[in-house]
Amino acid sequence: MQFELTKEFLTNLRKQISSEDRTALSAQLDELHSADIAEIMDELNNKEIQFLFTLFDGETSGEIFVELEEETLEGFVKEIEPAELVSKFIKHIESDDAASIIGDLSEQKRKEVIANLDDVEQASDIVDLLHYADNTAGSLMAKEVVTANINWTVSRCVREMRRQAENIKNIYILYVIDDNDRLLGIMSLRVLVMTSPKAQISDLINRDVISIKTNSPLEDVQNSMEKYDLVALPVVDELGRLVGRITIDDVVDLIKEEAEKTFQIASGISENIESTDSIWVLTRARLPWLLIGLLGGIAGARIIGLFEDQIQIHPEMAFFIPLIAAMGGNVGVQSSAIIVQALANNSLGIMGVVPRLFKEFSLGIINGVICSILVFAYSYFTEELNLAITVSTALFCVVIFAAVIGTWIPLLLDKYKIDPALATGPFITTANDVLSIFLYFYIGKLMYFS
Amino acid sequence: MQFELTKEFLTNLRKQISSEDRTALSAQLDELHSADIAEIMDELNNKEIQFLFTLFDGETSGEIFVELEEETLEGFVKEIEPAELVSKFIKHIESDDAASIIGDLSEQKRKEVIANLDDVEQASDIVDLLHYADNTAGSLMAKEVVTANINWTVSRCVREMRRQAENIKNIYILYVIDDNDRLLGIMSLRVLVMTSPKAQISDLINRDVISIKTNSPLEDVQNSMEKYDLVALPVVDELGRLVGRITIDDVVDLIKEEAEKTFQIASGISENIESTDSIWVLTRARLPWLLIGLLGGIAGARIIGLFEDQIQIHPEMAFFIPLIAAMGGNVGVQSSAIIVQALANNSLGIMGVVPRLFKEFSLGIINGVICSILVFAYSYFTEELNLAITVSTALFCVVIFAAVIGTWIPLLLDKYKIDPALATGPFITTANDVLSIFLYFYIGKLMYFS
Repeated sequence: MQFELTKEFLTNLRKQISSEDRTALSAQLDELHSADIAEIMDELNNKEIQFLFTLFDGETSGEIFVELEEETLEGFVKEIEPAELVSKFIKHIESDDAASIIGDLSEQKRKEVIANLDDVEQASDIVDLLHYADNTAGSLMAKEVVTANINWTVSRCVREMRRQAENIKNIYILYVIDDNDRLLGIMSLRVLVMTSPKAQISDLINRDVISIKTNSPLEDVQNSMEKYDLVALPVVDELGRLVGRITIDDVVDLIKEEAEKTFQIASGISENIESTDSIWVLTRARLPWLLIGLLGGIAGARIIGLFEDQIQIHPEMAFFIPLIAAMGGNVGVQSSAIIVQALANNSLGIMGVVPRLFKEFSLGIINGVICSILVFAYSYFTEELNLAITVSTALFCVVIFAAVIGTWIPLLLDKYKIDPALATGPFITTANDVLSIFLYFYIGKLMYFS
Repeated sequence: MQFELTKEFLTNLRKQISSEDRTALSAQLDELHSADIAEIMDELNNKEIQFLFTLFDGETSGEIFVELEEETLEGFVKEIEPAELVSKFIKHIESDDAASIIGDLSEQKRKEVIANLDDVEQASDIVDLLHYADNTAGSLMAKEVVTANINWTVSRCVREMRRQAENIKNIYILYVIDDNDRLLGIMSLRVLVMTSPKAQISDLINRDVISIKTNSPLEDVQNSMEKYDLVALPVVDELGRLVGRITIDDVVDLIKEEAEKTFQIASGISENIESTDSIWVLTRARLPWLLIGLLGGIAGARIIGLFEDQIQIHPEMAFFIPLIAAMGGNVGVQSSAIIVQALANNSLGIMGVVPRLFKEFSLGIINGVICSILVFAYSYFTEELNLAITVSTALFCVVIFAAVIGTWIPLLLDKYKIDPALATGPFITTANDVLSIFLYFYIGKLMYFS
């Protein structure tokens, strides 16, 4: 059932494209889902993509077009004329996809594309959508909604649906509105199917409708749809008028993007990149974090430098530098990861900051005691008592310290509206490294020289 | 529109519960969505939860029940009798939720609950579902599907739907089957609404249906639903007979869980935990990784120990230990995060392993050259030439080495069906630490003593 793109398939297909073998190509591609054809096109160049599109009608082309990867899409759109872009693709896709593609165009090209939109309703929908700020419900919604007036009967509703629903693919629910377009409730298609044509919409409406404002942040959209298990969420303006709807597939993409972003930031990657991106893009996303790490390393070098005499007399102190630094980093990452995740899920619960830090402090004590005992035993038997006391005491402090800091920093960042995932990244590991090392050598100094 | 749970609300509610003030409680809770009531119950104890449930009818209780957090649910289910569990809750929920709850019970209690199921159809559905292996499509599906026979007319279909659909809430699509229950295609409710009652289902069916086998892994379920933007995915047995369906809300939960698991494993947390879990659970999930880190640290100590004389003569070499170790870790985490993510998304593309490693090697050279020049400059001006050469050469090698290893290890783990996120965790950082330090001191030895 599922299509699997192979190298052989692709090589063969490219041959057929270069020999313009339409019959063979159609035979292979007609059986595939538009998402699969898009996946194939993601591996082709613009010329090849353009040729493939000549095999499909407008509707299918539109379906494939919106499934292309962002990179492929951008590259392809750049090379085609505004008039062609509209007639072959934009005309056949929903307003949200159209607005998102047009929004990414250059100022000049955007104007030309909009001027080419001959369907007045579509043009106005798209222009409306382009006004909403990024990261708001308005920017994610589609204008295509099927509505029923509260004063209609079921039979009138079915008649009107025929008219309205022509260009709307996924209808799960009817939105019931009043004469001023205000959203009053919802009605499932199932109710419509199962009721007498003479019934009044006002008797069938379900008024428990969850909606969202156009200017609500995407985070709220995601939370609502997840929490209430919705497949579509109606969007209303300040006056409560229905202006669009957001569907679950867009939110699934959003959830994945969010999770990826968190994971990337926490791994020290600053842009949304993929393994297929160019070396230059990858370097740009990674180098800044490495430079932060480098600065941290230099700070560490300076701190150890303060204890140069101490190392000369007790070189064995140097042995445990990596252990102390790594443990600080590991504990810090663990603690902050838990908080970052809870913040992302809205699952922090109602515990305050102080009891939470206290909990992490207790946890630090347990982990700290266990790790310290082990390291004490090792260093006592391989080295001597003073060093064993130094290493185990320092480790104990570092574990507790890193646990508390790792919990506190993401909470603090979140309070000031900074992405808390930053805390899990090289930033916190580096800071913990530097502080751990200082603590270690300072304790060593007290042990050996006082 | 969205309910926000506050401390005040909860304190007030608990007072009303302890004084059994049903009127006040109903007034507050009746307006809320079942998911919100569940969120409140997640903060209450079993006695309080039990009292609140007396305020709602069976259907609402069922809706709230399935929205409870796993922990709350487990604790609550333990305390109620099998007969009550069935009559008050299980009877009112869908087969997939019921099976998942019953599947988590003890052997003894499970038997008692099943014996109490008086609805024969529900009992057989649940027992069927309990047979499917975890992590397969069968284990996630619900048995409630609305079907239409290919030989029916639209009016017959509507009649049958009334009968079938009584207990099924979310109907988006009708599944068209033949006399042997084999899935032939789908039909949207919209088509049903908009067509003449005399039309034949066989003329309205859409045969391009994407389905999945009961024994397919959940990964395939997720990929299919995402790729093809489905809100429901029909599940068929080996003979192609329709046996259930999976809805998008379950897959959204799955996607989130997967992302969380990846993030947690990569952060050195081995179980699926939440910040609200007990200290004991949190320790159990975190300590093993810290012990791995500790072992790595001890290995590092042993390696540095090999170069004790060298440190005594050149204590300045110790200054750069944290820098070298941290940079190896940072680069390794970046590289593996990109691969882990691409593996999770199926977006590796069709590039082979060797060109991929070569790409990462090139990237390592760019990052390595830049970082090495900076660190050379710093160490040359603060220390002296030999050290500057040692540190920058070691850093250059470490960056390249970590980039290649960070790419290769997750690919290798994936090949052997081990979760590649393991590679991004303390495991790879620790391994990189140890190797980096060895490299650093070895180069130092060559520089100073040869």
